[in-house]
Amino acid sequence: MSLRDTPSRSSPLARRLRRLTTGERRDEAEAFLRLFHRETGRSDTALRRRLAEVEGALRRRGTYDHTPDELAFGARVAWRNHARCIGRLFWESLEVIDCRDVSDPDAMAGHIVEHMATALGDGRIRSLMTVFAPARPDRLPPYVESAQITQYAGHLRRDGSVLGDRRTLEATRTARRLGWTPPDPPGAFDMLPFVIRDTFGRRVPYQPPPDCYREVAITHRAHPGLGDLGLRWYAVPCISDMILTIGGIDYPCAPFNGFYMGTEIASRDLADVMRYDTLPAVARAVGLDPDRPGDGLWRDRALTELNDAVLQSFRAAGVTIVDHHAASEQYMAFLQREQTAGRCPSGEWTWIVPPQASSACPVFHLAMEDRRLTPNFYRSRAADGAGFGPDVEDLGPVRRTLRRWQRRWTATL
Amino acid sequence: MSLRDTPSRSSPLARRLRRLTTGERRDEAEAFLRLFHRETGRSDTALRRRLAEVEGALRRRGTYDHTPDELAFGARVAWRNHARCIGRLFWESLEVIDCRDVSDPDAMAGHIVEHMATALGDGRIRSLMTVFAPARPDRLPPYVESAQITQYAGHLRRDGSVLGDRRTLEATRTARRLGWTPPDPPGAFDMLPFVIRDTFGRRVPYQPPPDCYREVAITHRAHPGLGDLGLRWYAVPCISDMILTIGGIDYPCAPFNGFYMGTEIASRDLADVMRYDTLPAVARAVGLDPDRPGDGLWRDRALTELNDAVLQSFRAAGVTIVDHHAASEQYMAFLQREQTAGRCPSGEWTWIVPPQASSACPVFHLAMEDRRLTPNFYRSRAADGAGFGPDVEDLGPVRRTLRRWQRRWTATL
Repeated sequence: MSLRDTPSRSSPLARRLRRLTTGERRDEAEAFLRLFHRETGRSDTALRRRLAEVEGALRRRGTYDHTPDELAFGARVAWRNHARCIGRLFWESLEVIDCRDVSDPDAMAGHIVEHMATALGDGRIRSLMTVFAPARPDRLPPYVESAQITQYAGHLRRDGSVLGDRRTLEATRTARRLGWTPPDPPGAFDMLPFVIRDTFGRRVPYQPPPDCYREVAITHRAHPGLGDLGLRWYAVPCISDMILTIGGIDYPCAPFNGFYMGTEIASRDLADVMRYDTLPAVARAVGLDPDRPGDGLWRDRALTELNDAVLQSFRAAGVTIVDHHAASEQYMAFLQREQTAGRCPSGEWTWIVPPQASSACPVFHLAMEDRRLTPNFYRSRAADGAGFGPDVEDLGPVRRTLRRWQRRWTATL
Repeated sequence: MSLRDTPSRSSPLARRLRRLTTGERRDEAEAFLRLFHRETGRSDTALRRRLAEVEGALRRRGTYDHTPDELAFGARVAWRNHARCIGRLFWESLEVIDCRDVSDPDAMAGHIVEHMATALGDGRIRSLMTVFAPARPDRLPPYVESAQITQYAGHLRRDGSVLGDRRTLEATRTARRLGWTPPDPPGAFDMLPFVIRDTFGRRVPYQPPPDCYREVAITHRAHPGLGDLGLRWYAVPCISDMILTIGGIDYPCAPFNGFYMGTEIASRDLADVMRYDTLPAVARAVGLDPDRPGDGLWRDRALTELNDAVLQSFRAAGVTIVDHHAASEQYMAFLQREQTAGRCPSGEWTWIVPPQASSACPVFHLAMEDRRLTPNFYRSRAADGAGFGPDVEDLGPVRRTLRRWQRRWTATL
């Protein structure tokens, strides 16, 4: 093992991973295994056997391996627990592709490309997750550095303006440094390569082949001028920079996709001033005058038309998409189902409530709390992963009592 | 003093008021006086004299009296500190009417009616607060029980439906019990009496005379059908159920008004399903079909037209109103001014971000934190008033050091 092969505490990934003590990791493993056995109807005997097995592995190696069933279940529950997602009604439909034995960057990229093509299919998008090797006490695996597998480039022009997506300015610079050449001339929707960092921390770029993704041109039946703007967006959002944490084991490379809610593209990606900033152009294309003094609502109207255009275009192309009202109703159904199952779902209001017609969506009127339960997804232990832990109720009776005593003892001091 | 004259710990108001220890009240008083003297450029000698005076009063009576200047300053800073208000750019313009010596309900009602008329003026609304007697250790003052001074009734029909505002169902029932008779036949916009609870806890209703308020009929230049719905709203929102807390002294009756942001009326009061629920009717009035399958965005369009109608109607009537984009810009200006003054303003994202075209408003993209500083406003110590306290930096050097030691000591344990 070379010196560079040992994971450095100061590597970008190591700084993001949760740090668990031996006891915490054992607790998370136990809580997860109890949850898994309970919810999948497995026997107490099987649970006891598996607990002993995992405890032995943790003692010997400081880590353990999930069975394929545990992995798939853990990934689904991570989605169910993730407070920021409005689309969790479909958590059980997540398909998990087990690629834990793949650690060659080229082979990884191959599986990711296959993931993208499978998820897209004929346009009826499937929710997929491909799980690569977990982090080990002595070794960090390769991982995808890019925020999403498909992303559009942001080109900084000489005059300081940006052509394309302002969010990917840095990623575009990195891609160019790695040898990527944008089309000539560069456009507003140039597909970036996604970047894998290998075990040595080296960046390897991979251009997604055009047959693994699909783009939808944004047009509006009633406003042909909107189509003339040449806006487009890709069909499958595949998040690739989140760490999947299951039972004390972290998977830093587990790209997953769902399908889009219209506002993500129309109200944020294409409209935000710090992204594509197209609202003034959209307003003019639908016959509004953004410069008319005293008309504060041209933005509201342009946003609605852009949302309409995105929804129309995706539907016409046969690509799965949901509008924010339907998504909001689906979230209400999710809450009801969870409560029926005796669970209290986490929610983060600022993420769940759509940025458009907010108070007309039932989710606006809910109180929400993020219980920060594992399994879950996070980007960094210092930010969205802070305070993550298993539901104490999922611990065994002895440890549960112990935990409660500890708490009371700490509170007394 | 009769038995009923002593404030009961179980009175509705006593259950809402903050409970401070003697030391906490002294700390809040000291912090407030330091802040007042610093920001109003008063001398250290004056501060020392005033501190000694207040400490003496607190020792002797458990309470103290604010000077008129302190009261006005405290009320303005309470507004400045209140995390839920987007309109705080104008905190310094608040006019404070000192009615601390008025405690007869009839006289209080008279002052409140005058407040409403003065605030309205010719339509260019002034931000006013009328402050009545504070809570004393041995005595709770009369206070307004109604959420706002002007409110529309909500009439429960035999079939379970509601005519008017669903939010005031209970207040309407109370008003009827107190002898209020709605117009015959009842309408959707019947002005309720506001209710004062006297020192014995008895409710006394007061009908705001029509010349102290003004209503604006909601019409839309491009959609006369919207005007045919007969929607209207009152010009001046005057909040009357919040407790003003300044330097350890609580004022349970301090009704205050600003002016409306359009979305408050259009996106919430008139549109919320649990309020007037007019969106389907508005949609039809502007030529949309809420029942057309697959058109999820009729709500977004109806909301924008209703917002437009409210803004147009108020402006045409010469009544002050602000749209959510302008309010959002004003909040950004407030932040900048506060930061220039070396202060870090509190904000509550879920309240500040408008419920309409949210991500197109710059406030959407801010991180906010509620520092829960006093002076401030609150409804109940258990809810929005929980954790309120003075900025430790405003304490004197000795007590500041003491507080820090206490904290470190507690953290070590």
